[in-house]
Amino acid sequence: MSNHKVEIIPLGGLGEFGMNMMFIRSGSTAVVVDAGIMFPDDELPGVDVVVPDITYLREHRSEIQAILLTHGHEDHIGALPFVLPEINVPVYGTAFTLALAEDRLREHGLLESVKLIEIHPCDRITLGEMEVEFIQVTHSIVDAVALAITTPAGVLIHTGDFKIDPTPIDHKNFDAGRFEEYGRRGVLALMSDSTNVERKGNTPSERAVNARFDEIFSAATGAIIISCFATSIHRIQIVLDTAQKFGRRVALLGRGMVQVYQLAMEMGLLHHAEGLCIRPGNDRPVHRDRVVYLSTGSQGEPMAALARIAVDENKHYKVQRGDVVIISARMIPGNEKSVLRMVNHLYKRGAEVFYDDGSQPPIHVSGHASADELKWMIQTVRPKYFIPLHGEYRQLMRHAQLAEETGAVSGQIIVMESGCHLVLDQEAARLLDTVPVGRICIDEGSLEEVDEVVVRERRHISEDGIVLPIIAINKHTGAIERSPEIVSRGFVTMDQNEDLISNASEVVRKTLEDASIEEKTDQTLIRNKITRDLKKFFFKQTQKRPLVLPVILEI
Amino acid sequence: MSNHKVEIIPLGGLGEFGMNMMFIRSGSTAVVVDAGIMFPDDELPGVDVVVPDITYLREHRSEIQAILLTHGHEDHIGALPFVLPEINVPVYGTAFTLALAEDRLREHGLLESVKLIEIHPCDRITLGEMEVEFIQVTHSIVDAVALAITTPAGVLIHTGDFKIDPTPIDHKNFDAGRFEEYGRRGVLALMSDSTNVERKGNTPSERAVNARFDEIFSAATGAIIISCFATSIHRIQIVLDTAQKFGRRVALLGRGMVQVYQLAMEMGLLHHAEGLCIRPGNDRPVHRDRVVYLSTGSQGEPMAALARIAVDENKHYKVQRGDVVIISARMIPGNEKSVLRMVNHLYKRGAEVFYDDGSQPPIHVSGHASADELKWMIQTVRPKYFIPLHGEYRQLMRHAQLAEETGAVSGQIIVMESGCHLVLDQEAARLLDTVPVGRICIDEGSLEEVDEVVVRERRHISEDGIVLPIIAINKHTGAIERSPEIVSRGFVTMDQNEDLISNASEVVRKTLEDASIEEKTDQTLIRNKITRDLKKFFFKQTQKRPLVLPVILEI
Repeated sequence: MSNHKVEIIPLGGLGEFGMNMMFIRSGSTAVVVDAGIMFPDDELPGVDVVVPDITYLREHRSEIQAILLTHGHEDHIGALPFVLPEINVPVYGTAFTLALAEDRLREHGLLESVKLIEIHPCDRITLGEMEVEFIQVTHSIVDAVALAITTPAGVLIHTGDFKIDPTPIDHKNFDAGRFEEYGRRGVLALMSDSTNVERKGNTPSERAVNARFDEIFSAATGAIIISCFATSIHRIQIVLDTAQKFGRRVALLGRGMVQVYQLAMEMGLLHHAEGLCIRPGNDRPVHRDRVVYLSTGSQGEPMAALARIAVDENKHYKVQRGDVVIISARMIPGNEKSVLRMVNHLYKRGAEVFYDDGSQPPIHVSGHASADELKWMIQTVRPKYFIPLHGEYRQLMRHAQLAEETGAVSGQIIVMESGCHLVLDQEAARLLDTVPVGRICIDEGSLEEVDEVVVRERRHISEDGIVLPIIAINKHTGAIERSPEIVSRGFVTMDQNEDLISNASEVVRKTLEDASIEEKTDQTLIRNKITRDLKKFFFKQTQKRPLVLPVILEI
Repeated sequence: MSNHKVEIIPLGGLGEFGMNMMFIRSGSTAVVVDAGIMFPDDELPGVDVVVPDITYLREHRSEIQAILLTHGHEDHIGALPFVLPEINVPVYGTAFTLALAEDRLREHGLLESVKLIEIHPCDRITLGEMEVEFIQVTHSIVDAVALAITTPAGVLIHTGDFKIDPTPIDHKNFDAGRFEEYGRRGVLALMSDSTNVERKGNTPSERAVNARFDEIFSAATGAIIISCFATSIHRIQIVLDTAQKFGRRVALLGRGMVQVYQLAMEMGLLHHAEGLCIRPGNDRPVHRDRVVYLSTGSQGEPMAALARIAVDENKHYKVQRGDVVIISARMIPGNEKSVLRMVNHLYKRGAEVFYDDGSQPPIHVSGHASADELKWMIQTVRPKYFIPLHGEYRQLMRHAQLAEETGAVSGQIIVMESGCHLVLDQEAARLLDTVPVGRICIDEGSLEEVDEVVVRERRHISEDGIVLPIIAINKHTGAIERSPEIVSRGFVTMDQNEDLISNASEVVRKTLEDASIEEKTDQTLIRNKITRDLKKFFFKQTQKRPLVLPVILEI
């Protein structure tokens, strides 16, 4: 038996939602699977996207042969513009995946300097000591693939995101045969998508939304607005087909929707009768009961089309009583409040709103495999090692339990988090010391990293406000030039708390009075003393802990 | 036919979640139904509770005869400590409702100065021109009542929060007979709970959780921790009974749980065999497979017992592999992230966690009526007017649609929001001008109102940070004493952006240089100029809009 080894290092996406990226090494060859972002929550105010820390990639730049993309969702490709400038290796992906990646790279002016290599399902490529086969899978986005990576130590299967849709809209079937074939030949490790492990049974086919769409279209007497992710090509095809069937034209709202529609049309991924789609505002007006608006903004994003419509600020479409709004997407955890706020506004303007509230037939179906499909994958591949991918810790744990139940894993089931460093061979699985991982916060305005300290300060200030005692010291004599000024924001209203503010000024004056000449000339020292005394004073008076930031001006 | 009128003014809870309060006037008699709080979301940083604006009550203080409480949940009684000091009228409620209200009032030192009057279901009281009957209903909290208010203009039914539980744990049945009786005699207006209108069918009985608890208890080999709301007396009784059945003792964790347990025991609302409950840390240790911990913290509140346990900081209990955690509560919208973060931590420490993820039998059942129960209420009461209560706008709209479908409302269905002023008589329903309503933000540390401006500042700073240009001006000569200092927090790191900061200082210097003597001596004017110029500069350089706050020191 060989003593070849393979190393698996998730750099994001395991034990967290989003930011999927994995480093795989065998001998002197390494590849990176996916490079995704995470959307920040309210705990990171002012941050637009979060990308994985790539310190480890930087340190092993010379070994990396390629970045392999499984599909085109942002949590799998969004970090490319931040990774490629430092790790400029060829990027492999299917046509639609690369088309979306190109858009992102173009925005960052990187398109010229990177090498994108299109692959097709069933293609095999050789990268150093590895051979990679791309296996067609079904997912909410078209053109998704899983990876079978043959290394000297054995075969690794990485499912990417998938579900097993028996009736995919584009007739590109889930390639069960290839998984079966690899299973027969023997697989060292299976790494599989955990997103929907908590759901029983099978995820319905994408076609399951047809019944609900038909129901709503039949009953609708006004305009229909449907919102979904712009990259949900299957869903958009269903909208186009349903519109055709019910004699409605389709108008696109939102920049992202228009862009992806054009892309998908050029690539032959969407099909519809000539003239079905109209340009809102440009074409001859169509009566509102003859039109479907297809719109961005399913997550309640404040600048997206649907949120603008909800507050009557879209120039092409205004809600009228009798209109119907369909939000055909999952509410991503953390977005519930903004989505429901938008729904309330739409109701107020007279629309009837349908969203994913569990009612049947479904208005949205997930793109991720449920428990029974996940079991199928494990029982088919019958790996030696099993590693749950993509999910928070509880989802990885439940996927591990599910794998245990199948009895189909001959070796170990390994629950890893981002940063774990796993070494596998036919004999054993070992975890080495963790590698550096983390979240880098990006501000899209400036495209710059937002320092963690800055984010922490924002959170602190947003809780209890900020107070700035301002002291003018004569730099020659060390004398205080005037009584300390107190400025604050987000703390208390200055005009209603004059006593508190003037007492605070008195506290600072006293701290300065009690300080020795040495202390007064050591800015750091005197700042700390003032901060300490003021914090104590404010907490006693208000039970608050504002950020205290003394400013000392030497005059 | 009489020309008596009745006025209905919701002051909170209609078109928003929580903060339930309603003003009802007939002739010279007015009552207030409930006085609840709202829990703030992330958009109100540093705010602990939100109470309704009571300007309208203040203005009509002399007419108000009583506050009538439907049940003891915080969103119905929590604002009493803020209302009673201004509107000191008798408060009517059932025993358990008043016991919880007493706790709140005691905390605020108000217990001596208020008059609490206990009522029982079926009691009738006369308040000026009104007669009020309290009708027993079932809900997640014990001792809940609906109100039938007989006025010269007709009868109003206010359901409070309710569901129709055919098998309540405390055998205190939903009093369908009284609703039927009022329905037969004729009801002017029905106001009914909309919380669960989006759910089809009937809400299961509280007893539905028994099957799931039995399943989990049978399989458990380690300790069991169950978290629910401390006031969910029915649920706690089920836990006690299940523990008894499986030979486990019960230990309470969390101050709120201990307090409410003691209260409920004293009031005879909870029953268990002697010695079943043990005090963690005090009694002789019990082996972990012989104990159930009943804990607060089902919403992931960071200081509550379960969240502390999740990070191993509870002194009485530490999670071990094989332990089971049951979160037997709904995730309140907005709390999903903190609850799931806590679940992840519990999994990491080796626990199996069950929470309300839709799996069956249920681990939690709602206390609010679903669509079929709501229809029963409307069809039974057959009111002239129907007004949906308690819910965001979409829920009120759906409840209105449901009422429409029943065909049982002879007059109008009226969707109102907080602040609407409705006048009803047997002839017509009219909406007058809205009354002042709003949210008052309270900081629990200081128990003081947090000004809206302060909250807005916090949000602004938390997005883009704050920048303070500090200028020292000689008050005699008007000369700038030194080059302007720039201080910032939450904006950029000062040390990595020296150029930006020194250029900003230059911008301020130039603004001052270009200013006339008059401008320089008018602090407001010069501040505005500096703010405008710096904002423009920063946006150009960083695409950010920090809060700019010039400080001018006259030396």
